[in-house]
Amino acid sequence: MTNVTDQDRVLIFDTTLRDGEQSPGATMTHDEKLEIAELLDDMGVDIIEAGFPIASEGDFKAVSEIAQRAKNARICGLARANFADIDRCWEAVKHAEKNRIHTFIGTSPLHRAIPNLTQDEMAEKIHETVSHARNLCEDVQWSPMDATRTEWDYLCRVIEIAIKAGATTINIPDTVGYTAPAESADLIRRLIETVPGADEVIFATHCHNDLGMATANALAAVAGGARQIECTINGLGERAGNTALEEVVMALRTRNDIMPWKTGIDTTKIMHISRRVATVSGFPVQFNKAIVGKNAFAHESGIHQDGMLKNRENFEIMRPEDIGLSGTSLPLGKHSGRAALRDKLETLGYEVGDNQLKDIFVRFKELADRKKEVFDDDLIALMSADDATNDHLQLVSMKVTCGTGGQAEATVELEVDGKDVIATEHGDGPVDATFKAIRVIYPNKAHLQLYQVHAVTEGTDAQATVSVRLEEDGMIATGQSANTDTVVASAKAYISALNRLIMRREKAGPGADAREISYKDLT
Amino acid sequence: MTNVTDQDRVLIFDTTLRDGEQSPGATMTHDEKLEIAELLDDMGVDIIEAGFPIASEGDFKAVSEIAQRAKNARICGLARANFADIDRCWEAVKHAEKNRIHTFIGTSPLHRAIPNLTQDEMAEKIHETVSHARNLCEDVQWSPMDATRTEWDYLCRVIEIAIKAGATTINIPDTVGYTAPAESADLIRRLIETVPGADEVIFATHCHNDLGMATANALAAVAGGARQIECTINGLGERAGNTALEEVVMALRTRNDIMPWKTGIDTTKIMHISRRVATVSGFPVQFNKAIVGKNAFAHESGIHQDGMLKNRENFEIMRPEDIGLSGTSLPLGKHSGRAALRDKLETLGYEVGDNQLKDIFVRFKELADRKKEVFDDDLIALMSADDATNDHLQLVSMKVTCGTGGQAEATVELEVDGKDVIATEHGDGPVDATFKAIRVIYPNKAHLQLYQVHAVTEGTDAQATVSVRLEEDGMIATGQSANTDTVVASAKAYISALNRLIMRREKAGPGADAREISYKDLT
Repeated sequence: MTNVTDQDRVLIFDTTLRDGEQSPGATMTHDEKLEIAELLDDMGVDIIEAGFPIASEGDFKAVSEIAQRAKNARICGLARANFADIDRCWEAVKHAEKNRIHTFIGTSPLHRAIPNLTQDEMAEKIHETVSHARNLCEDVQWSPMDATRTEWDYLCRVIEIAIKAGATTINIPDTVGYTAPAESADLIRRLIETVPGADEVIFATHCHNDLGMATANALAAVAGGARQIECTINGLGERAGNTALEEVVMALRTRNDIMPWKTGIDTTKIMHISRRVATVSGFPVQFNKAIVGKNAFAHESGIHQDGMLKNRENFEIMRPEDIGLSGTSLPLGKHSGRAALRDKLETLGYEVGDNQLKDIFVRFKELADRKKEVFDDDLIALMSADDATNDHLQLVSMKVTCGTGGQAEATVELEVDGKDVIATEHGDGPVDATFKAIRVIYPNKAHLQLYQVHAVTEGTDAQATVSVRLEEDGMIATGQSANTDTVVASAKAYISALNRLIMRREKAGPGADAREISYKDLT
Repeated sequence: MTNVTDQDRVLIFDTTLRDGEQSPGATMTHDEKLEIAELLDDMGVDIIEAGFPIASEGDFKAVSEIAQRAKNARICGLARANFADIDRCWEAVKHAEKNRIHTFIGTSPLHRAIPNLTQDEMAEKIHETVSHARNLCEDVQWSPMDATRTEWDYLCRVIEIAIKAGATTINIPDTVGYTAPAESADLIRRLIETVPGADEVIFATHCHNDLGMATANALAAVAGGARQIECTINGLGERAGNTALEEVVMALRTRNDIMPWKTGIDTTKIMHISRRVATVSGFPVQFNKAIVGKNAFAHESGIHQDGMLKNRENFEIMRPEDIGLSGTSLPLGKHSGRAALRDKLETLGYEVGDNQLKDIFVRFKELADRKKEVFDDDLIALMSADDATNDHLQLVSMKVTCGTGGQAEATVELEVDGKDVIATEHGDGPVDATFKAIRVIYPNKAHLQLYQVHAVTEGTDAQATVSVRLEEDGMIATGQSANTDTVVASAKAYISALNRLIMRREKAGPGADAREISYKDLT
């Protein structure tokens, strides 16, 4: 009985950095992973699955460093069912005060067929690998992948083997997002009733949202006896994503009358981390997303004149403050001082040192000169802007002419490793011409996968945030930039993405960080 | 016993045009409403809630015209609990071959408090209004708003009254998105067991997604005995939106083993209507949205090298073809002819006459000259581009200069009611300068609420789709435009939104279409 907790406490296991990060195009840089891990730790996540150490050198380094820096959270790494994976995982997580090895194998008929193992052979492999993990680490999580499509008798048998071999958490993944609430609750309940030793471990639920029911399925599993929910911020993840952390946490809080379980999450930190994950992953949140969508707390205008003001409870079951959405926060302006800026940044969840504040204040003043009112979202964009000091490529200046009378023309001046280079190119529109000029200055064959612009706040003088995603030889890098000039922001975002590609190429050697091992590779 | 159907058939009641359209900023034009209604009718939706006739002249006209054009669907309008609303609703829906009046009142203690009615007074009002509706229309739906927070005994009492007064469908709304699956199923089950006459009507479920469980709650209600699901395309709706049509329909289809109910929806039409609703509402769908998100069928790249190709079923529970996503469709190019274009458009769900094809072919050739490969999404953007022939304001030409060396400059030439006007303005960035020049040419005080750019396809020569949302005196208008030049697309989208504002002002007289009545006004 290793880590069974109060019966009314549900552990939150966040896998934004593993299952979330592996969604096509959501790749994060090393620094971004460290930042998100710190935010997860701060908000009270119990277990952070920080990556899949054997998948790449980058994953290994990220998990190791997150393990070293963790304050309260348990740090977990993923490993397939073989000794090399498990050893590599342990090498990365061993630095954490609290650590966990998470090993898995696909147990459904479809998944057994690929390594071509009989039921007995796979059972033996599970026994060996879980025992090996437990010899290294006292906290071991085991997952029968595609559990919801595994034969009942065999599922009970392999779970019993894993428990006997020392697993302390048994995770039941609904790998293809196939289950429904009643079935999800029933599966966990029957497993706990049936499998010998089940009462000595924690059962976890890992749901995918393919049919739109990940949140309900996870909560149903808790009703069935699971005491760990695996989830991601914004429901990030492959295909339709994973259970969204913010949804299960707020549902448990709001409907504690019928779901009497608690988590350790500080819900007021939800909005900030949601925005950061949307930015660094390049996966925006839709307006009508539950809890963290722009409209989640917006009521139709008519209502403000009647019911809503008369009785707020009529249409509100949660308060914006509960998730860290400040209600009517006043914008800053060009006369706002350093102290006001620091106060505001703290309210928004940023703690800045004196030197950093100096830099930010300069950029804030520049922005306030161009924009009458600087809103919270403007500051968040400002804080997210890349720190370009160590970059290979830096924008010196640019000039673009475009319109309806023919091709656009862009003249771009970049500093490439300290030397200024200028190029002028024509293209279909200002962005195409600009990107062409950059490619002339710094030739590359990166493919533009995604280009996206959002106005950060309202009004025509709003800053635009541009996200650019580039792909080269299987490596993906995303760059962002915010500026009141969309074309300048586009150039900066493109340059930032290029800098990231260059950095990753250099750090990892040719192709090394192009994750060659998928967590679904079956061994 | 008016419209009770097979016990295994679930009716799909779509409220994209009523509950969806009322989400802040999602307002659609008259023509867009007609188009969406036609697509809903074509895909096999059983009941289309087309609007709230008394709310505005625009709503009334839209419901009336949709009623006249409906082929198979039953057309429904919303009405509060008073005779004027119900009469106006009937005036609009009576043109349909199959019609329905949907009347509602808030029955929870919080909602009873606002009109300050006792339980008995409200019961009397329900009897009168439902009887009145039934005298006009043989198909009447009644909803106790905020049912999930209404006292059990009172809820049973008012439902019984509504049934006796002639309601043929009883809808149980979870107005604030407060319920959870087990509770949702249980509520319907107990109501059907308890309320006299319940077996002679259809029970409907209407869920909101505030806690991320709308889909699961709706399906649970069906398990409890409901036989009508109220939903919207893309889950559009206030706050976190409504149950998503595509999710409940695909869940019922995919898990028919445990949810043995069928709908009449042609699922292959899902993707097309999802894209159209995203475009006309200005509410994009997030990448990781279930069923219709860009990533919903995208698997992490690694997988393509192993499990996925070996056995598609491993990770796929639905096929992209099932929702009308064509798999590996070849792009068109500058050498593609008219027949190829027509074929492709038909595959994408567009039926075009010869004259229309001629126009589209010209625009297609222009695009193919600028872009090597024209993908499906490029064509969808092309088809969505506004037909500007009757507009007050038209772009003649524009030229913009911007960059890092100071303010951007835009020279814009517009045709305003047949006369050319030119203006040059400076601004923070090319978009700000352009919008300023347009405002000098056509002075207005519309506020820019939303500005958004998406690349339609990949590559730097991709078309950009720009959405602009303007607000003026409570009227909201959205304009879209696609162009390989982002700044030109921005100007066109802004002009299109302005044209819509002008049109609505003229058609409706001052302020008339600014919905002054909310469906939540309590009478």
